Amino acid sequence: MAHINVPENIPGIRSLVAFRPDTGKPLYQLAEILLRGESPLSSAERELIAAYVSRQNECVFCSCSHAAASRVHFGEEQDVVDAVLNDLSTAPVSAKLKALLVIADKTRERGNLVLPQHIEAARALGATDREIHDTVLIAASFSMFNRYVDGLEAWTPTDPAAYAEMGQRMANVGYVLRSNS
Amino acid sequence: MAHINVPENIPGIRSLVAFRPDTGKPLYQLAEILLRGESPLSSAERELIAAYVSRQNECVFCSCSHAAASRVHFGEEQDVVDAVLNDLSTAPVSAKLKALLVIADKTRERGNLVLPQHIEAARALGATDREIHDTVLIAASFSMFNRYVDGLEAWTPTDPAAYAEMGQRMANVGYVLRSNS
Repeated sequence: MAHINVPENIPGIRSLVAFRPDTGKPLYQLAEILLRGESPLSSAERELIAAYVSRQNECVFCSCSHAAASRVHFGEEQDVVDAVLNDLSTAPVSAKLKALLVIADKTRERGNLVLPQHIEAARALGATDREIHDTVLIAASFSMFNRYVDGLEAWTPTDPAAYAEMGQRMANVGYVLRSNS
Repeated sequence: MAHINVPENIPGIRSLVAFRPDTGKPLYQLAEILLRGESPLSSAERELIAAYVSRQNECVFCSCSHAAASRVHFGEEQDVVDAVLNDLSTAPVSAKLKALLVIADKTRERGNLVLPQHIEAARALGATDREIHDTVLIAASFSMFNRYVDGLEAWTPTDPAAYAEMGQRMANVGYVLRSNS
C-alpha cells in the first residue's frame, strides 16, 4: 500500500498522477519530450539511460518499465539492455554510449560529481553538447521520477508481463495522460 | 564555464533552458504549479523545502535562490529560513513542518528511505495526504533541478545581491519563461 491514499490497482507514477493531475501534466510532458522528442540519441538509448539510472537508484518500477520500453525500441538488439543493466563495463554498446552512461551515473549520484574529465572523455568519443545535455537531463529527471514513485511507495507490480505490456505502450503510444490516470 | 556551450551571463537553470527551451517549458510549469499553485502548504514553506533539499544536495545556485524566495514570502519571519538551513533540530518552525522536512530529506537521499514511521510521525502532527504528497514531489523535483544545474556546471553567481534579486522575482513574478531564456 502506498504511503498516501491513491487509487488502487494503478501502478507506479500513474497512481500519483491520478492523485494530483495538475502536477502530473508537466511530468508527462517532460518524459514525452525527453524520451521520444527530437534528439541525436535514439529513443532506445534514452530509455536505456532512464532504466540504468533507475536501476542504480533502486527504483524497481521505473527500471523495469523503462528497460521494457528500451527493449521494444532496440528490437532484435534488445539483449544489450540487460547487458548494460547487469555490467556496463562488459556490455556490447558503443564507447560513446558508455561514456554518456558514466555521466548519467555521476549526475544521478550528485550533480557536482560530473567532472570535466567525464565530459572530455565523452567528447573524445564524438559526443556533442546536445547529447551531453540530454543525458544529464534524463539522469536528473529520473532522479526525480524514482524519488516520486518510491518516496510515496507507489504500487510496484512484480509480474514481468505487466512491465512488458507497459514497455509496449511507452514505446508505441508514449507518455500521454489518460482519463483514468 | 559550463560543461556545454550555453549563453553567457545567464545564471543557473535559465542558461540551460535557453540551450533547450522545449524541455525548459515543462520544467518551469512544474516549478510554478508546485511552488506557487494551490497547496495546503504556504509558498514560504514550499520554497523552504526546496532550499533545504538543495542545500543538502550541495547545489549552491538552487539553495541560495530558493532560500531568497522563501525569505520574501516569510517577510518579517524570514530568519526561520537560515535557522532551518543551519540546523533543522533547533529551528523555530512547527513540529509538523519539521516532520515534513525529514520526509523531504529522506526522499532526497533515496526514495525507498522514506519509511512508514516517517509518514506516521508527520500524520500524528496533523500532516495530510496532500501535504505529504507535495513535500515528496518538491523534494523529488529539486533532486532533479539540482542535478540539472550542477551536472552541467551552470553559472553560479557568488554575489548575495544577485540571489536577493532572483528571490524577489521568483516570489513576486513566479516561474515564467522569458524571451531571453
